[in-house]
Amino acid sequence: MDYKLIYTPVARDLADVEANLSDLTEQWRSDFPELHAMLHHVLRGGKILRPALTFLAGRCIDGVTSRMLNMATANELLHIATLVHDDAIDKADFRRGRETANKLWGVEKAILLGDFLFARASEFAATTHELRVVKLFSSTLRIISVGELKQARAAFSLEQSLQGYMDRIACKTAALLKMSCESGAILAGGTEEQIQVLSDFGFNLGLAFQIVDDILDFTGTEVELGKPVGSDLRQGTITLPPLLLMERYPAANPISDFIRGVARNNKIAEAIDMIKSGGFIEESYRHALKYSTQAQEMLNRLPESPYRGALRALTDYLIERRV
Amino acid sequence: MDYKLIYTPVARDLADVEANLSDLTEQWRSDFPELHAMLHHVLRGGKILRPALTFLAGRCIDGVTSRMLNMATANELLHIATLVHDDAIDKADFRRGRETANKLWGVEKAILLGDFLFARASEFAATTHELRVVKLFSSTLRIISVGELKQARAAFSLEQSLQGYMDRIACKTAALLKMSCESGAILAGGTEEQIQVLSDFGFNLGLAFQIVDDILDFTGTEVELGKPVGSDLRQGTITLPPLLLMERYPAANPISDFIRGVARNNKIAEAIDMIKSGGFIEESYRHALKYSTQAQEMLNRLPESPYRGALRALTDYLIERRV
Repeated sequence: MDYKLIYTPVARDLADVEANLSDLTEQWRSDFPELHAMLHHVLRGGKILRPALTFLAGRCIDGVTSRMLNMATANELLHIATLVHDDAIDKADFRRGRETANKLWGVEKAILLGDFLFARASEFAATTHELRVVKLFSSTLRIISVGELKQARAAFSLEQSLQGYMDRIACKTAALLKMSCESGAILAGGTEEQIQVLSDFGFNLGLAFQIVDDILDFTGTEVELGKPVGSDLRQGTITLPPLLLMERYPAANPISDFIRGVARNNKIAEAIDMIKSGGFIEESYRHALKYSTQAQEMLNRLPESPYRGALRALTDYLIERRV
Repeated sequence: MDYKLIYTPVARDLADVEANLSDLTEQWRSDFPELHAMLHHVLRGGKILRPALTFLAGRCIDGVTSRMLNMATANELLHIATLVHDDAIDKADFRRGRETANKLWGVEKAILLGDFLFARASEFAATTHELRVVKLFSSTLRIISVGELKQARAAFSLEQSLQGYMDRIACKTAALLKMSCESGAILAGGTEEQIQVLSDFGFNLGLAFQIVDDILDFTGTEVELGKPVGSDLRQGTITLPPLLLMERYPAANPISDFIRGVARNNKIAEAIDMIKSGGFIEESYRHALKYSTQAQEMLNRLPESPYRGALRALTDYLIERRV
């Protein structure tokens, strides 16, 4: 199933987000063509998952969306800002088969572009005129940056644990999916219980989503991924599949050899083979499924609606996807 | 005169800001020692000019400062965040004689530290519970990032104009000094007229302040500056003194030769000599004085008080300083 079909109940809302992103780009066309070109490059072609979550969560509670549009736009801009900085930090040349901003315009301008996107995101959040979501936005930005710092600290380190991994993905991915849902619920005027349910849904979905992303980095093909297989590991980032391998074979394994710098290119290939053939993909999926099941259970506490149905379908889609 | 003496009327308020910065650092001491070390390094030793402006501006109107403390802290954190990213982008090793975050921890972690500081700044802004300053904060962050992007675009370019220079310093420096004063006035409950007066004061002070900074980059010694003389020019940034030189000698001058890559090291020395001996420092000071005079005129519209007196003394100090 195509995720765009799942978005159908909020297709109009998402078209408004796309219009916001387009306006934000076009306003620089004559005054600052280079910024226009950068924005045009990074703001199109995304899955706009976070705005979809904001609208679907909000509409689970109420049909009124006028206050949600700005926050949905903020959530997408924050997501893209973090990708731009991530790629600049990793000096990645490609993301999903397209050249990165740092490849096209240099790391320096990519950093500034990311800062600009953070600023525009926080402006959109402020124009909800709702202090609670403004605070949520700021604290989420802080949580994400701490998560990224923890990931940088853990890179090329042999000190790895499941708890450390879960903590990092909670910060760097789940926090934003949580905010995407929670802000929709707040702006729809949900009760504290409804807000909590949708917040927990988003958080658990985020954990499952990131685990699957980390699995696909090993099981996908270079064409599907738009970047080399095992890219995270090459960057020194130990995600769940290699972590489970290290836990099973603590004495000797290709990951630890790779981290120690032993015959790196051979060890990467060996690690990928061992992860795929040793049951670590299946074990990782069991972890993902645990969180997606918890996310689905949260949805059971909301009344049936096309929006709840879409959140359910989206959860299944994100677990089952190949890209 | 020492600027710390000028701060006397708001010394207690500034001690509260220092305590906020210290708390913000200490809370990571055991959980995340590396983040603690980074914060400890970048959050101390500053002039805390922006918090001083926030409190002095606010107290020009009213004595109540409880809502101002968070915003004063936000203004300082935003300032430091931009310095951290600036240095990471310029790959600068030193700032005011101290090693930069990127020198000590690498460009990657410096980018993430900057993002963390932006986030903490926006959290402090949000805890004022005043949507108007939250919006001001977001739009100022956007203006600063556009200014930095414009500076990056203008680097090593022969297309230079006084208007382009003024536009860049308005964005990258004056916008933050403007916000520092304006937010103090808003949170003190100033009238629209008072808010506008203090906003204009901060903006003009910011223009004068940056012009003087750009002058000192040529007239200071390496010891005073804590970095090589002419650092901006070496980075390809054409500030006011070299710009005036280029305007006086459009046909041939050492700056244009430097930009074109002709015998770069010789041209830098030649440019510095010519700027210092050709009257361009004095001409640059006349520009700075024009804006500081406009700033002072704004102060005349406020009632006499120790706080107005301090803003006046600060304006003089920032023009006359050697470092």
